[in-house]
Amino acid sequence: MPSYSAPVRDIAFNLDHLLEHGALSLPPFNELSADLLEAVLDEAAKLAGDIWAPLNASGDRQGCQRREDGSVALPDGFAEAYQAYAEGGWNGIGVSEELGGQGLPEVVASAVQEMLHGANMALGLCPMLTAGAIEALIHHGSEEQKQRYLPSLVEGRWTGTMNLTEPQAGSDLSKVRTRAVPEGDHFRLFGQKIFITWGDHSAAENIIHLVLARTPDAPDGNKGISLFLVPKLLVNDDGSLGQRNDVVCASIEHKMGIHGSPTCTLSFGEQDGAIGYLVGEAGRGLNHMFTMMNEARHKVGIQAIGVAERACQHAASYAADRSQGRTPPARGGDACSIDQHLDVRRMLLSMRARTDALRALAMNCAAELDVARHHEDAERREAAQARADVLIPVVKGFSTDQAIDITSLGVQVHGGMGYIEETGAAQLLRDVRIAAIYEGTNGIQALDLAGRKLQRDSGTALTRLIEEVRGVAEQLAAHSALAGHGKALGAGVDDLEACVARVLEEGADTETGADAVQAYATPLLALTGHVLCAWQMGLSALKAWSALEAGADDDYLRHKLLLADFAIHHWLPVGRAQRQVMEAGFDSLLALDTSRL
Amino acid sequence: MPSYSAPVRDIAFNLDHLLEHGALSLPPFNELSADLLEAVLDEAAKLAGDIWAPLNASGDRQGCQRREDGSVALPDGFAEAYQAYAEGGWNGIGVSEELGGQGLPEVVASAVQEMLHGANMALGLCPMLTAGAIEALIHHGSEEQKQRYLPSLVEGRWTGTMNLTEPQAGSDLSKVRTRAVPEGDHFRLFGQKIFITWGDHSAAENIIHLVLARTPDAPDGNKGISLFLVPKLLVNDDGSLGQRNDVVCASIEHKMGIHGSPTCTLSFGEQDGAIGYLVGEAGRGLNHMFTMMNEARHKVGIQAIGVAERACQHAASYAADRSQGRTPPARGGDACSIDQHLDVRRMLLSMRARTDALRALAMNCAAELDVARHHEDAERREAAQARADVLIPVVKGFSTDQAIDITSLGVQVHGGMGYIEETGAAQLLRDVRIAAIYEGTNGIQALDLAGRKLQRDSGTALTRLIEEVRGVAEQLAAHSALAGHGKALGAGVDDLEACVARVLEEGADTETGADAVQAYATPLLALTGHVLCAWQMGLSALKAWSALEAGADDDYLRHKLLLADFAIHHWLPVGRAQRQVMEAGFDSLLALDTSRL
Repeated sequence: MPSYSAPVRDIAFNLDHLLEHGALSLPPFNELSADLLEAVLDEAAKLAGDIWAPLNASGDRQGCQRREDGSVALPDGFAEAYQAYAEGGWNGIGVSEELGGQGLPEVVASAVQEMLHGANMALGLCPMLTAGAIEALIHHGSEEQKQRYLPSLVEGRWTGTMNLTEPQAGSDLSKVRTRAVPEGDHFRLFGQKIFITWGDHSAAENIIHLVLARTPDAPDGNKGISLFLVPKLLVNDDGSLGQRNDVVCASIEHKMGIHGSPTCTLSFGEQDGAIGYLVGEAGRGLNHMFTMMNEARHKVGIQAIGVAERACQHAASYAADRSQGRTPPARGGDACSIDQHLDVRRMLLSMRARTDALRALAMNCAAELDVARHHEDAERREAAQARADVLIPVVKGFSTDQAIDITSLGVQVHGGMGYIEETGAAQLLRDVRIAAIYEGTNGIQALDLAGRKLQRDSGTALTRLIEEVRGVAEQLAAHSALAGHGKALGAGVDDLEACVARVLEEGADTETGADAVQAYATPLLALTGHVLCAWQMGLSALKAWSALEAGADDDYLRHKLLLADFAIHHWLPVGRAQRQVMEAGFDSLLALDTSRL
Repeated sequence: MPSYSAPVRDIAFNLDHLLEHGALSLPPFNELSADLLEAVLDEAAKLAGDIWAPLNASGDRQGCQRREDGSVALPDGFAEAYQAYAEGGWNGIGVSEELGGQGLPEVVASAVQEMLHGANMALGLCPMLTAGAIEALIHHGSEEQKQRYLPSLVEGRWTGTMNLTEPQAGSDLSKVRTRAVPEGDHFRLFGQKIFITWGDHSAAENIIHLVLARTPDAPDGNKGISLFLVPKLLVNDDGSLGQRNDVVCASIEHKMGIHGSPTCTLSFGEQDGAIGYLVGEAGRGLNHMFTMMNEARHKVGIQAIGVAERACQHAASYAADRSQGRTPPARGGDACSIDQHLDVRRMLLSMRARTDALRALAMNCAAELDVARHHEDAERREAAQARADVLIPVVKGFSTDQAIDITSLGVQVHGGMGYIEETGAAQLLRDVRIAAIYEGTNGIQALDLAGRKLQRDSGTALTRLIEEVRGVAEQLAAHSALAGHGKALGAGVDDLEACVARVLEEGADTETGADAVQAYATPLLALTGHVLCAWQMGLSALKAWSALEAGADDDYLRHKLLLADFAIHHWLPVGRAQRQVMEAGFDSLLALDTSRL
């Protein structure tokens, strides 16, 4: 399998050209030099390419179904690769300096995450879950909890997990049954959690489980659920590790992909009850979990883009090496590599244009998160958060759906070899397939957009975004060389505007509104994703054109123009069809007799 | 995993309603009673549901990487299930009676095949390849070869394989290097073939390999390739089995799916050379292979539809059982199964409407094959063959692409459980992924349509088909209740007509024509598939409506109306976008600098 080379050039292009709104010039970051950023990206690229990427295929083959000394045994090399990551200080790059991190902006931290996931998604999940635990403690932990747990988590000596799902409680967490019985200053937890990513392993000294559970007298439903911290090994007052807590890995799932990531069923309280500590307010567990889940969803989108990037490289490399057939007579009629055939070029270009567009959108969203956290002006912070809130379900849902298709095209470019596991193309599809499911299925993402995010401000944040996109369409339309892009993007904006209006209007109906939102949610998310990606590629085209006009002689920029052309004229039309799908209404969905299926 | 129940009702609906052009009233079939056909379908459904389907998951888990007594060992139960199939006489149902078969029409035989593939695709491949060998011998074998090999193949006591691919010769078979050296009345073969489906096993008494190879003085390229018959065990003049031939299974592939199907590297002539017999004319091997490949491609489409059908049933069953969330207040606000949520209903309905549409189209194509083979009027035979020739790449390419998406939606409906292998949803996606690759990648199918099939008669056959579709659109438009369908289908027909004209016109350019055909091929195939599926569902709606008006009280027919509505108004628009994609031209494909990917 060819090696993975982190897309440093494209990340730098986005940083340079797309982030003019100033995320990198905010007070905490304005002393970051371009040199430092470049050094960070280059070092991350080395870690990803040299240490993590070579373990991707072997981790998939070996999996982690074995136990060793009472812990789940990881694939060979994973523990060492994780150590290299932690010792390099990568775990804290996005965490503020006062908490022991490096305080780099989210836009840089998430670019680094993309590299790591592209190199090895199964391993990348470990720090991704730890980051969630860190976020939860920063926002909701007591001072004592922060002092006791955060430094080791930030350092990466300990890892974290999220324990939400139970067999009867998946998308509907109101059904959580795990019990937390008070006992002095702590609780005793009893219950079973499933699908716990990196739920057990021995690559870190300790594992901090964050667990949703119900206290004995809590009400039914969401409001009875609290968040608890349950360490694998109890932590003594002096910070040393104490006895093993009453939580065990009851089984390890056999999954379609990410075989190198141990997905565990965790059993709490098979003996006396697992000792746990309340995090935040009792009864607010779901809210606390969702604080960090919003950002975790952004990271799942980033992860899928990383895998899509690897699929692009993998397919392009194979297509350049594989000789089959001849060019048409008019192009010489010679024996050629398959990347000379236009049908293969169509696949490669489609993979690449979409991956670059998704990355640009995800980085744009990361920059909004930076502004939301750090801008001195409260109004700007709020507006940026509202923008990010709208973008996040799109980055998660659309990037993961597209990554599944991109990795599947990657298999296709390989022909029969793509179906053979040794080639590595199939693994990328198997791995990334989960990204459309976890951290809220893409159906849940679509509902988050069309329901919660759109309804709560009557579409204000999305409408502002649409106006910004329209502005770019107008800029393109006025550009001598890019007018066609402007017209196409403008048509997409019209579609999106009409569909948003439809969802707001029909969603307001007291009888059928809730169903309308559900019915339109997925088509709306797909349309939004296509239009926003076309927006980012339109912006890229404007920037690349300016740079070329200013005298840059750079094939990369000319390539970017081509990708923008493809994204806007060959990809956007497919998304625009969702307007017609929405205009067909949802009577058939309501009328469906499921017993006939 | 829920059981598989063969879609007998839908197959019967298609037989009754869609095949008015008379495939079943042709001379060889006009004595088949409706009762007999029903009995055949019911018996096949039992074999599929009771014997083949229960082995699908265990076959996937167990795979066939072991050897036993010098042969590849199949998963437990596969040999017995194959025996039940052969002993039931199923292997010859589509073969004429004089050759020992049952002489049933293709439209029935392929419906049975759909059931078997839906039940167990890995096992279904075995008779599928045997059928290819039978076809090859019927069309190109000598009388002596037919007598010696056909009866056992038709009976299913022996199985067949197709040996085309070599490491350097995949889509481009002109690069085949396997040598065939003449020796008396036979040849000695030397070389290695890869990706040989059911290349070795012990479920049958013998295996008949059909092998592409080159004689010593043959010219380079396609015209130097001949077809050879190489038995695993040599067959004596009295029909008894003789010594083992010099062909061995050198390795067994580790694939993404169809783990129960042994995909072998076969090594010919590691000792003295494998004894082989020339089939048909020397130098015409590729032509002979393609005779049967056209029909094999139809069968791959059928196969994918079978797996899509199983995914529909699997997802609908899970969604009916899985309780999460509540219905909207206006629909009661009660705890409910997830098939009450409109976003889930959208997925289920999309899976079902597409699967039914693909089946109708594939059965329509099968009926054309029957007419092409059996009609007394030569002109009708020729026209039907031309129609089938156009339909086959669509049935293969479009059905398999759609089946990948349908099975992936099936995973999605299951949420987290879909990613766990025990659930069985992921296997369907992993299995069916190959169908877009083998028997000619879908890119090759698209080229077959836009290149060979369209160019050779300047689009006559496709234009006739388009006119027929337009006729149905007009019928719908004139129908009081289905006028909207007529308008939508008519718009799709306009798109298809315009795009066909574009391919013919630009394809005729001596400079850029070959590239134009390549660039437009895949979008054209997708558009054609969508329009033809909408055509079939429009026809279904007309028939269902007539039957209901005539007094039938049948929920199945009302359900069919709903599926037609979804296919035409929610699915067709996505396909229609391919017109815009094609109208964007292919400059970017030509300009692409692949070294920048």
